[in-house]
Amino acid sequence: MDETTLKSMLNAVAKGETPIDEALRALKHLSVEDIGYAHIDHHRSLRKGFPEVIFGQNKSAQQINGILERMAPWEKTILVTRIDPEKAAIVISRFKDAQYHDDAQMIYFIKDASPITGKGTILVITAGTSDIPVAKEAYLTAKAMGNHVETIFDVGVAGIHRLFAHKDMIESASVLIVVAGMEGALPSVVAGLVDRPVIAVPTSVGYGSSFGGLTALLSMLNSCSSNIAVVNIDNGFGAGYMAAIINRV
Amino acid sequence: MDETTLKSMLNAVAKGETPIDEALRALKHLSVEDIGYAHIDHHRSLRKGFPEVIFGQNKSAQQINGILERMAPWEKTILVTRIDPEKAAIVISRFKDAQYHDDAQMIYFIKDASPITGKGTILVITAGTSDIPVAKEAYLTAKAMGNHVETIFDVGVAGIHRLFAHKDMIESASVLIVVAGMEGALPSVVAGLVDRPVIAVPTSVGYGSSFGGLTALLSMLNSCSSNIAVVNIDNGFGAGYMAAIINRV
Amino acid sequence: MDETTLKSMLNAVAKGETPIDEALRALKHLSVEDIGYAHIDHHRSLRKGFPEVIFGQNKSAQQINGILERMAPWEKTILVTRIDPEKAAIVISRFKDAQYHDDAQMIYFIKDASPITGKGTILVITAGTSDIPVAKEAYLTAKAMGNHVETIFDVGVAGIHRLFAHKDMIESASVLIVVAGMEGALPSVVAGLVDRPVIAVPTSVGYGSSFGGLTALLSMLNSCSSNIAVVNIDNGFGAGYMAAIINRV
Amino acid sequence: MDETTLKSMLNAVAKGETPIDEALRALKHLSVEDIGYAHIDHHRSLRKGFPEVIFGQNKSAQQINGILERMAPWEKTILVTRIDPEKAAIVISRFKDAQYHDDAQMIYFIKDASPITGKGTILVITAGTSDIPVAKEAYLTAKAMGNHVETIFDVGVAGIHRLFAHKDMIESASVLIVVAGMEGALPSVVAGLVDRPVIAVPTSVGYGSSFGGLTALLSMLNSCSSNIAVVNIDNGFGAGYMAAIINRV
Amino acid sequence: MDETTLKSMLNAVAKGETPIDEALRALKHLSVEDIGYAHIDHHRSLRKGFPEVIFGQNKSAQQINGILERMAPWEKTILVTRIDPEKAAIVISRFKDAQYHDDAQMIYFIKDASPITGKGTILVITAGTSDIPVAKEAYLTAKAMGNHVETIFDVGVAGIHRLFAHKDMIESASVLIVVAGMEGALPSVVAGLVDRPVIAVPTSVGYGSSFGGLTALLSMLNSCSSNIAVVNIDNGFGAGYMAAIINRV
Amino acid sequence: MDETTLKSMLNAVAKGETPIDEALRALKHLSVEDIGYAHIDHHRSLRKGFPEVIFGQNKSAQQINGILERMAPWEKTILVTRIDPEKAAIVISRFKDAQYHDDAQMIYFIKDASPITGKGTILVITAGTSDIPVAKEAYLTAKAMGNHVETIFDVGVAGIHRLFAHKDMIESASVLIVVAGMEGALPSVVAGLVDRPVIAVPTSVGYGSSFGGLTALLSMLNSCSSNIAVVNIDNGFGAGYMAAIINRV
Amino acid sequence: MDETTLKSMLNAVAKGETPIDEALRALKHLSVEDIGYAHIDHHRSLRKGFPEVIFGQNKSAQQINGILERMAPWEKTILVTRIDPEKAAIVISRFKDAQYHDDAQMIYFIKDASPITGKGTILVITAGTSDIPVAKEAYLTAKAMGNHVETIFDVGVAGIHRLFAHKDMIESASVLIVVAGMEGALPSVVAGLVDRPVIAVPTSVGYGSSFGGLTALLSMLNSCSSNIAVVNIDNGFGAGYMAAIINRV
Amino acid sequence: MDETTLKSMLNAVAKGETPIDEALRALKHLSVEDIGYAHIDHHRSLRKGFPEVIFGQNKSAQQINGILERMAPWEKTILVTRIDPEKAAIVISRFKDAQYHDDAQMIYFIKDASPITGKGTILVITAGTSDIPVAKEAYLTAKAMGNHVETIFDVGVAGIHRLFAHKDMIESASVLIVVAGMEGALPSVVAGLVDRPVIAVPTSVGYGSSFGGLTALLSMLNSCSSNIAVVNIDNGFGAGYMAAIINRV
Repeated sequence: MDETTLKSMLNAVAKGETPIDEALRALKHLSVEDIGYAHIDHHRSLRKGFPEVIFGQNKSAQQINGILERMAPWEKTILVTRIDPEKAAIVISRFKDAQYHDDAQMIYFIKDASPITGKGTILVITAGTSDIPVAKEAYLTAKAMGNHVETIFDVGVAGIHRLFAHKDMIESASVLIVVAGMEGALPSVVAGLVDRPVIAVPTSVGYGSSFGGLTALLSMLNSCSSNIAVVNIDNGFGAGYMAAIINRV
Repeated sequence: MDETTLKSMLNAVAKGETPIDEALRALKHLSVEDIGYAHIDHHRSLRKGFPEVIFGQNKSAQQINGILERMAPWEKTILVTRIDPEKAAIVISRFKDAQYHDDAQMIYFIKDASPITGKGTILVITAGTSDIPVAKEAYLTAKAMGNHVETIFDVGVAGIHRLFAHKDMIESASVLIVVAGMEGALPSVVAGLVDRPVIAVPTSVGYGSSFGGLTALLSMLNSCSSNIAVVNIDNGFGAGYMAAIINRV
Repeated sequence: MDETTLKSMLNAVAKGETPIDEALRALKHLSVEDIGYAHIDHHRSLRKGFPEVIFGQNKSAQQINGILERMAPWEKTILVTRIDPEKAAIVISRFKDAQYHDDAQMIYFIKDASPITGKGTILVITAGTSDIPVAKEAYLTAKAMGNHVETIFDVGVAGIHRLFAHKDMIESASVLIVVAGMEGALPSVVAGLVDRPVIAVPTSVGYGSSFGGLTALLSMLNSCSSNIAVVNIDNGFGAGYMAAIINRV
Repeated sequence: MDETTLKSMLNAVAKGETPIDEALRALKHLSVEDIGYAHIDHHRSLRKGFPEVIFGQNKSAQQINGILERMAPWEKTILVTRIDPEKAAIVISRFKDAQYHDDAQMIYFIKDASPITGKGTILVITAGTSDIPVAKEAYLTAKAMGNHVETIFDVGVAGIHRLFAHKDMIESASVLIVVAGMEGALPSVVAGLVDRPVIAVPTSVGYGSSFGGLTALLSMLNSCSSNIAVVNIDNGFGAGYMAAIINRV
Repeated sequence: MDETTLKSMLNAVAKGETPIDEALRALKHLSVEDIGYAHIDHHRSLRKGFPEVIFGQNKSAQQINGILERMAPWEKTILVTRIDPEKAAIVISRFKDAQYHDDAQMIYFIKDASPITGKGTILVITAGTSDIPVAKEAYLTAKAMGNHVETIFDVGVAGIHRLFAHKDMIESASVLIVVAGMEGALPSVVAGLVDRPVIAVPTSVGYGSSFGGLTALLSMLNSCSSNIAVVNIDNGFGAGYMAAIINRV
Repeated sequence: MDETTLKSMLNAVAKGETPIDEALRALKHLSVEDIGYAHIDHHRSLRKGFPEVIFGQNKSAQQINGILERMAPWEKTILVTRIDPEKAAIVISRFKDAQYHDDAQMIYFIKDASPITGKGTILVITAGTSDIPVAKEAYLTAKAMGNHVETIFDVGVAGIHRLFAHKDMIESASVLIVVAGMEGALPSVVAGLVDRPVIAVPTSVGYGSSFGGLTALLSMLNSCSSNIAVVNIDNGFGAGYMAAIINRV
Repeated sequence: MDETTLKSMLNAVAKGETPIDEALRALKHLSVEDIGYAHIDHHRSLRKGFPEVIFGQNKSAQQINGILERMAPWEKTILVTRIDPEKAAIVISRFKDAQYHDDAQMIYFIKDASPITGKGTILVITAGTSDIPVAKEAYLTAKAMGNHVETIFDVGVAGIHRLFAHKDMIESASVLIVVAGMEGALPSVVAGLVDRPVIAVPTSVGYGSSFGGLTALLSMLNSCSSNIAVVNIDNGFGAGYMAAIINRV
Repeated sequence: MDETTLKSMLNAVAKGETPIDEALRALKHLSVEDIGYAHIDHHRSLRKGFPEVIFGQNKSAQQINGILERMAPWEKTILVTRIDPEKAAIVISRFKDAQYHDDAQMIYFIKDASPITGKGTILVITAGTSDIPVAKEAYLTAKAMGNHVETIFDVGVAGIHRLFAHKDMIESASVLIVVAGMEGALPSVVAGLVDRPVIAVPTSVGYGSSFGGLTALLSMLNSCSSNIAVVNIDNGFGAGYMAAIINRV
């Protein structure tokens, strides 16, 4: 949003010529900064309740830094996802308050932690130990968006009594994220136990005919449980985001 | 749940020997009736807030009637999905109060309409005219589960101003269901406009490389918007169910 | 096996020139009758313990009758699989003692029931009502091969307490066949409960991204349980056969 | 299983208040230790006859060591599968009695070799030289589970007389594991020769349209032989485990 | 080829102005008749040794008759492939000397049988009874092209001694066509027995994960035998044609 | 576009208060009529130069008639694509001036033929006779949009001299549409001969591994020629539309 | 084209024996130089208006240099695509005037810039920052071919107001190239806004079920907009070339 | 073949007790040496006319050397295919007369060159420069098997006059091998020009939707030419072998 436009609009508001509601709507859609390789959506947090999250994969550390430089002055919470340790080191060295979570391959740049605004607890469950990195991405995202988040790891269906040992925790969650690779069966079982929305996240864990998570993805889409919806393979971020959005409906 | 067990438990409750909470938990998981070709879960509405929905495809009309006979005495609302007109006619002639919606291929057997308990409006949007049957299945499911539901049909991305004409309705919904075949791009655009959860439903509408809805499905799973989760191709029922569950979080 | 060869060999046995063991081995591999459109393996029951099973799909009723005519004089038990009602009617009208099971699309031509030789009970479980036809094919095959067979139908993972209600039966089986479409998750759960071999059978039940049973198939191949092996989609016959073979190891 | 519970239960058994059978059943399902990144199932060997096997892929050496530390005091035989030489070196240096098989990429941590309890001989056959690593994984697994195991390598169908040279060995096995990449035809041929269960293992050996083992997998699933069931691509471990389970039916 | 051009060229040949070789080459490429919905290649038999074969699928009976009318005056042998009985009846009623083979779905319009010019015997083998229609298409094609052709049907790898019973016939063939559906393993085994070229034909026979012949196709492409090449699924015609071409190298 | 808005805007134009350019832009995006099952874009011909084309597949004849009733008063040319003969008969009986092309499965409702505005000739070429219906759809579309269109049918690459016979016609076209099924090779060859844009249209013609046109589609996408772009399988309409758009650049 | 032939032909032209048109046509197709590993088409710029572009992937630097050496004396503009930095360095060191663009992985060897001959502006748009390299390849190609080219980057559909901010630029372009990975929805939206041809380029950007760009490709092929055609995944070069060809129709 | 058996058989031949023909047949199938990781088929050259070829991929240099040590004393020509430079160096250093062709990744260990026994010339054609390595593998194989072999490289269909420049060579070949990646169209065009067998070899050259050669493979399988058969992706060896076998029919 260029300065002149903004100023004149605010003047009009100040003079009572423009009603506040109208100004708000205008601001919601206007302010995008074009820096050549990216369009930064400065008013996204105003419009969507959370600022743009930077997808780190395929961006250079320089590009990420460039975007962060424009966002940092205005935002309290910025996340960078899918950023490997080499690029993260360059970013961290430039923004001292940013913090890198290497299991989730995520940068947490939080100047002012969001208050807990989510209604209930978001619970993140994994089928195996290998699914933890994706679960952590979901966990960190939901937490940054102002939610109370809990985790249970390695309770896959091949030994289902491990899951049932956590029944109380499962039944008291308001939204559940279930992360699984291989046969991807866990979300169906969990969804059958609760009357809450379950976000299913397939992971690329496995080998052979797991086909990089495709099997788990298809399995989840074909669940016989109805309180389930699915996100992309390894998309812990999307699951955490969706759960947070649901938790404030 | 066999009679004897139930009676003795209720006696114990009556005498104060069993606390009410404990009895409730037990009842939630016990009562399943095995009728040979199906296990009917009588306490599902107690446990999950909504009775079992009968998946009509691959079941004979006789099997469907058999299940309805056991459920009818106890439930206020029963849905049968994916039931073709021939089978539906047989069911309708046996259960006079049941009603067949031929666009959604669904039986609505509602003795006592659920009160509106969903928090906000669920909005069902389709990209094309051909997506309407799936949208209707979502609409009827969410409505039966006690929600206020609205619809906008045929506003696909190839003429995006048709969508924007309904901006107020879109921005005021609490949960959105977006149904699209072909390129499956509409959910991404809609999700970008709101800060509410969007359930994306791919449809098998299309030809050639739409591969029976696979293209739309993949497209939705790869959405750049984050407030989206996806259900199976043509799964209007699942989308309506999930939206209803979210609408009471 | 042509007559001359057989006669001279038997003569040699009779005179003690050929040891019985050697004659047995020879007979096992020789006797195949070529009737133009098929090679009938008359000594298969000698060699494999069960006569050839006729795969009815893609064969005409005339071809099936032609094969049965050659086999009938020599075999006590003949099965025809994947035969539709029209073809079956023609076969039944020719072989009065044959019996058609229309759920399993199978002809049972049993002149002399096999004694129970299988060591334990084979248990056939289905996830849904729609999986029953495939389960019946497995059931009839294993039974014809001399086994005690039991069934539990419609106990899928979305309401897992339905399964646990049959825990004793599950734990006492010697071999288990688990039949499931959709997400195909049931075999993993069942296999986790027992220390017995589980044969998993995916079915083509479902819609959309179930892709005619491919999803269930892949899901089962990726099971985290280790006491599982998988057969082709809808291959109830193969599962019943394999279970019977295992049950006499 | 936490100590207090276990103690009180054992007291009850000691006093004769709890029958031994009941205690055994309880113990079978209770004892799971949650160490954050994994749930260790201490009573699995009691319940399933063999302790949990550690899937090494995607776990760090630290995680594997952590799990081994908890399991080592209680188990006689522990296997770690799919562990590469780098991680294996770290594990071996911590657990001096563990042994690494680099062809099978497996750790064998056997304090007390299982007695031979399997009924007959398990025979592992490969189509090519390149299939040997997968075959070795099957061999080591079945052996660790108390079976007599034999091998025949490089006898694929393109020169089928190589296979027939081992006919006696093939006919005397009680369970057969057949490992093949490329066209995956060997299991069908072997299964046609015997009346014993055959576990078919596709491998990712090959190039071009072998598609990482998919071709061999599909080929095996479509076998015209009926005494065959299939496991995941390269899943030597699963094949060895399943064969061992079958060998004690 | 229009009349004027042809006449003047022939005049030049007659006068010795154009050498015969040059005229022959010109004629080979010129004469194509455009009848709107088809380009008829009248000189194909001159150029390729066999006239154009009409692919019946997707053409109307009227179109086929139209093409036959133009070809009939000039050709001794015309084949129409993939023509169903309804269309064939219309064609047969117009061309009395044409003959319909309903197993191969092929019209044989042979006014003057080709002399046997192929060097050796072409042998067509099938794995099952269901593969016979495709084998017949190969058989009829190779025969029409002037070859001695033999057949062996139903000798699949699951009972491999059935194949070996025909060893002499197999070893004496000059080119072999092996037709198989399901696992598609037969061509590899046959090719391993001979030092002659094998044309492998996958068929769409099967169910479940046979995927309309894809499994057999992939299996054949991955054969470990080297004297094999593959044609399209169900392409008996192509196999017969290729074998005939090879048989006159 | 509702009447009041339109009137006031036109008043403003009349009074000179709104410049004509501004009014034009507004009109371009406003006027969409919502008839429940469809949003009719009345100003599309103003905005895009051609009115909305009705996609007939999956719409009922009643829905198509409903849309035509709203469009007919305002448009000179309306096309309905992918409409089968049964539905077309109902539409034709209601709109007497509409004309049905049964090869292209298309309704041509042209009250006033567009003048030829395209710059050069659009040439539609097919590889085979079976590709003609798709080619006709392209032909009719491009013609309705005001172009001179020519056709050459059945000149596939297996007899490439048939193609070269039309070299002059090919070299003088301004835009080329090349329609092919099976191996889909023709567009590459044609594009190599010209310096004009080629729109490649794969068709679902073929069998076996043509996979409903997928093979032709992939082949065209991988063309070594650079002056090619591809549309969906069987999308003759899209190809004709795109060619027409290009022909007026 | 060998010297002798060329000389005699030119002599004939000089003497007026061969008309200039005829000579031109001959030259267009004759002159190909065979250098063993490549056939260099020296007259391509004469015939197609632009010289051959060297596809660098899978060629060695030595091969590329060898080809450039033959082309350099005759051509004003030579492009090498898909050449990595290592190979590029070797080429650049040999041809000092060549320039390497490392974002597009392309060598620009332009001795004499083409004049702007394209009719209007070609506009290249990307959905994300990660799509820029492919867009740059398109940009450089179209520019080298004599066009005015503009770019807009990072305006994907998830924040569609970013796109609308550039409406004037979009509406004034004569040909548009739209580059997108992930869900591939942007080309449909853009095409809906204009009445100009849109070339859609899917990219391999993304993860999980983006399947290396397949999802975006399929999505674009199924676009509901009609003024779209698609090129191969990551084929920026093809898109730029096609756009340039269209821009001079 | 163990020594004793061989000796006694030869004695019997010497004495005239065993006819020579019978001994020959026996020897053809007996002599296989089992060296643990491989079964070496010593009589393959007797039986098939060419010794076993060693598939180098997935074998260690030690395994390859071990096999060569056993074969070297008996064979005049040994080929090792798919062997990378590192492994080749180890083999070459052990067998001084072996020669490594690094473009074809093949070892040529020829002590005594085969005389030319093939009937005509085998011609190897490639579409592009990048297809040369696969073509070289075919070339070297066919040459080692006693054939006259010629090559034409880089004559793909996008500039089809490059191909036609070699028409004489093409028309005089007895067997043709056509190697192509990308759209895989060249074999169809070549096969249309000749009446000789064409072996089509798809290559993994390309990017995006070439899917590692799958597109070229499918394209070739769907060829409209009938004198074509296909081998696996990149299988130059198989193509050369098959061509050699055909060339001596």
